[in-house]
Amino acid sequence: MKPIQVGLLGIGTVGSGVFNVLARNQQEIRRRAGRGIEIATVADLNVERAREIVGSDVKVVADARAVIADPSIDIVVELIGGYGIAKQLVLEAIAAGKHVVTANKALLAVHGTEIFAAAQARGVIVAFEAAVAGGIPIIKALREGLTANRIQWIAGIINGTTNFILSEMRSKGLDFDVVLKEAQRLGYAEADPTFDIEGVDAAHKATIMSAIAFGIPVQFDKAYVEGITKLSAQDIRYAEQLGYRIKLLGITKRVEKGVELRVHPSLVPAKRLIANVEGAMNAVVVQADAVGTTLYYGKGAGSEPTASAVIADLVDITRLHTADPEHRVPHLAFQHDALSDLQVLPMGEVVTSYYLRLRVADQAGVLAKVTGLLAESGISIDAVLQREADEVGGEGSTQTDLIILTHDCQEALMDAAIAKMQALPTVLAPITRIRKEELN
Amino acid sequence: MKPIQVGLLGIGTVGSGVFNVLARNQQEIRRRAGRGIEIATVADLNVERAREIVGSDVKVVADARAVIADPSIDIVVELIGGYGIAKQLVLEAIAAGKHVVTANKALLAVHGTEIFAAAQARGVIVAFEAAVAGGIPIIKALREGLTANRIQWIAGIINGTTNFILSEMRSKGLDFDVVLKEAQRLGYAEADPTFDIEGVDAAHKATIMSAIAFGIPVQFDKAYVEGITKLSAQDIRYAEQLGYRIKLLGITKRVEKGVELRVHPSLVPAKRLIANVEGAMNAVVVQADAVGTTLYYGKGAGSEPTASAVIADLVDITRLHTADPEHRVPHLAFQHDALSDLQVLPMGEVVTSYYLRLRVADQAGVLAKVTGLLAESGISIDAVLQREADEVGGEGSTQTDLIILTHDCQEALMDAAIAKMQALPTVLAPITRIRKEELN
Repeated sequence: MKPIQVGLLGIGTVGSGVFNVLARNQQEIRRRAGRGIEIATVADLNVERAREIVGSDVKVVADARAVIADPSIDIVVELIGGYGIAKQLVLEAIAAGKHVVTANKALLAVHGTEIFAAAQARGVIVAFEAAVAGGIPIIKALREGLTANRIQWIAGIINGTTNFILSEMRSKGLDFDVVLKEAQRLGYAEADPTFDIEGVDAAHKATIMSAIAFGIPVQFDKAYVEGITKLSAQDIRYAEQLGYRIKLLGITKRVEKGVELRVHPSLVPAKRLIANVEGAMNAVVVQADAVGTTLYYGKGAGSEPTASAVIADLVDITRLHTADPEHRVPHLAFQHDALSDLQVLPMGEVVTSYYLRLRVADQAGVLAKVTGLLAESGISIDAVLQREADEVGGEGSTQTDLIILTHDCQEALMDAAIAKMQALPTVLAPITRIRKEELN
Repeated sequence: MKPIQVGLLGIGTVGSGVFNVLARNQQEIRRRAGRGIEIATVADLNVERAREIVGSDVKVVADARAVIADPSIDIVVELIGGYGIAKQLVLEAIAAGKHVVTANKALLAVHGTEIFAAAQARGVIVAFEAAVAGGIPIIKALREGLTANRIQWIAGIINGTTNFILSEMRSKGLDFDVVLKEAQRLGYAEADPTFDIEGVDAAHKATIMSAIAFGIPVQFDKAYVEGITKLSAQDIRYAEQLGYRIKLLGITKRVEKGVELRVHPSLVPAKRLIANVEGAMNAVVVQADAVGTTLYYGKGAGSEPTASAVIADLVDITRLHTADPEHRVPHLAFQHDALSDLQVLPMGEVVTSYYLRLRVADQAGVLAKVTGLLAESGISIDAVLQREADEVGGEGSTQTDLIILTHDCQEALMDAAIAKMQALPTVLAPITRIRKEELN
C-alpha cells in the first residue's frame, strides 16, 4: 500500500524531531502500522533552513496553504503554535478533508470546541497526544485506557520549566529569580518565560485533560491560573520540614457541584511518587473509581519526546482513517452528542487545604489570635510550626515565622480569614498562602 | 444501536469486578463507547454463586460452551485462568468467530503464538490489557502510545505480592518467611504462593511485554526466572546502605545479539522513581529511543483494577470490531507477517552488574584474594563495603560480611568467578549474588 502522505506545517524543534524519528525508525514504524508514513511536503517560512533539515527528497514550500490544497496529502501536522494563523490553517485543513495532528495546546484549550465540531462535521480526525505532557501517552490513557472508569481527579506536573525551577530551588536552596536565569541559560526556560512561569501553559494542558476526563467542553477561560513567581526558597524549606514538596500542579476534579480546574503551586506529601518527580520531567496522576490511582511519567517537552507523540497520532490515523467515523475514538473521549454540562466552579468554591506563612511579631498571644480567627471562620488546623524568633529591627524587637497547615475548607472562607488575619497589627507582612493537596 | 453482547466465562474476583463496574458506570461507558456493553450470559461451574452476583437479569449457565455457541454473543471474556480448559475455550471461541478478552497471562505467555495465529486467521481480536500489570494501561502504551519508538528495554515491578513482601521486609526489617505469612493473612499472597514468589507470574508478564516491545513471538520457555525466596533482610539492609532498594523486576532488553528476558531480584538506585513503588503496587519503566524514559504506575491486581483493563478492551473492540482486520492494532504490536527472529539470549550471555555478599573469615588478605579473583576474570569493582567483624565461634575466631558491587560483566564470567571465590577456604558460606540495574 502507498505510504500515507503527511504535510508538515512548521519545522522547528518538534517538526525536525518528527522528521528525524520517522526517518530513523521508518522500518520499525511500518512493521507496526502496516503502512509507511512519509513526510511528502514541509511548509516553513524559512525555506532554506527547512531544506537543510529535510534534504532534497522532500518538497519544501513557504506557503502552508499549498500543503492543505494538495490532494495527495492525507494528514496535516500543525506545529506552528499559537492561536493566530495556526487556527486558520487547522480549520482550512479540516475543511479540505484532511486529518490533522497538532501539538498546539493553546489552540485546543481556547478554540477546541470550534475545531472539534468542524472535524466532527467533516468526518476527519484531529489528534493531539503531543499537546499534553509531551511524550507521555496520557491522552490515550485517559480516552482509551480508562474508559471503564468514572474519573474523579487528575493532578499533573505538566510544565517542565517550572518543575525544573522548583527542583533547583529545593535542592540548592536558591530563590526563584536566580534559578530562572540558570534555567534560561540551560535552555529549560525561554527568553520570555511568562507562559510557563505564570502557569498558563499548564492551564492549557489541564483544560484539555478536564474535558476528556469529564466529558465537558474545553473551557480555558474558566481555569484558575497562578504561577510560581512568588514562591520563596524559605517556603520550600518549611514545606520540607513538614514532610511536603512544592510542585506546580494542574488539577481538575469532579465534585458534587461541578468541576474544579486550577493551576497553582501545591504542597504534596513528600512520600507521594509525584512529589519525587524532579527536573524537567512531567507526571500525571489520575484517580478513577475502578482502577484507583495510576501515574504516568516521562518527558513533557523536547524535540523527540514530542515527536514520539505526534508520530503515535500519525500511526493511529493510518490505522483508523478508513474506519467509519462513529467507530473512532471521540475527540473529547465522550461521543460529541454526549458531552456533559457540568460547570467549572469559580475558585472561591474550590475546597482544599492550605499552608499559611505569617510573619508575626514575637509577642505573647499572637498564635492564639491567629488560630482564634481561623476557628471563627470554621477552618480547622492540621499542624503549626513556629520558628524561633529572629532578631530584626532595633531595640530588641523580634519577629518570627508562623506556619500553619489547615484541613480542607472552601477557598472563599480562607480568603476571608486571610483578610482578617492580615488586618492584625502583629501580622507584619503579606501572608503567604499555598494550597495543599494530599493526592490520596 | 443494540448493546454489544458479552459472555463471561468465570465469575470470580475479576469477573464480579467486571460485572459491578459495567453496572455502576454503564452510562459513563456508553457515553464514551457510543454503544452499550451488556453482559448477556455468565458461565460458571458454581451457578448458584454466579446467580447471587449477577441477579436475575443475566443468564447463568454451567457450561462455557453454551456461551461460545450462542450466536447472539459478540465477545467472550475468559477469566478462568490457567493453560487447561481456558486454552480450549479461547480457541473454540475464536473458531466460532467471537472476539476474546482475557486476563490470562499464563495462557498467552505459553500459548500466545498459537492463539494469536488462530485469531488472525479467523479475523477476530484477542485483547489482553488485563494480562499485564492489571489496571495500568501498559499494553496500550506499548502497542499504541510508543509506536514511533525503537524500544530499548522494559523493567517492571509486575507482581504485587512480591513487591508487598519486599516492601515489608525493608520497612520492618523482617525476614521473608515471616512477611510471607503476614501477606497470606492479609490476602496479598495466595495459600499456594509459588507462582508469585518464584517469579513465574512476573515472567509470564515480562514474556508478553518482550513480544510486543520487540516484535518477537512469545517465548516463556526462554525466560530466566528467579524468585525472592532466598532474599534476606540483611541483604536488603546492606543494599540500602549502598543507596539501593531490592525489587523483583521483570526485565526485557534489546541488545546487539538478541533479546534479554529475565525475572529476578534486582538492586535499583533508591533515587529512581520505580525504587519507591511500595506495597502491592506495580510500575513499568520503558526506555525508548525517541521518548526516552516513561513510567506507568498503578494497581497490578484486584477485582476492579483488573476489571478496568478488561472493560477498556471491551470498549476498544466495540469501537473497532466493524473495521477491517488490517486496520486494527496487531496482537503483538507488529503486523503478524513482520515479526522479528531476534533470539532470546541464555542467561549466561546477559550483561549486567552485581551485588555480592561473602561471609568471610576476618583475616588479613581476604579482600585482596577475592578482588584478585574478580580482576583475573576481567570483572571490575564499583564499590566495596566491609562490615566490622562479628565474634562468632570459639577462641576469638571472627567472621565478617564483605559486600562488593561490580560494574557490568557477562553472567557467565560472573558464574565462573563466583565458583572460584566460593572455593577459597576463607569464604565460609554460600556467596549471595543479586543482580543490579541502574535503569538510566
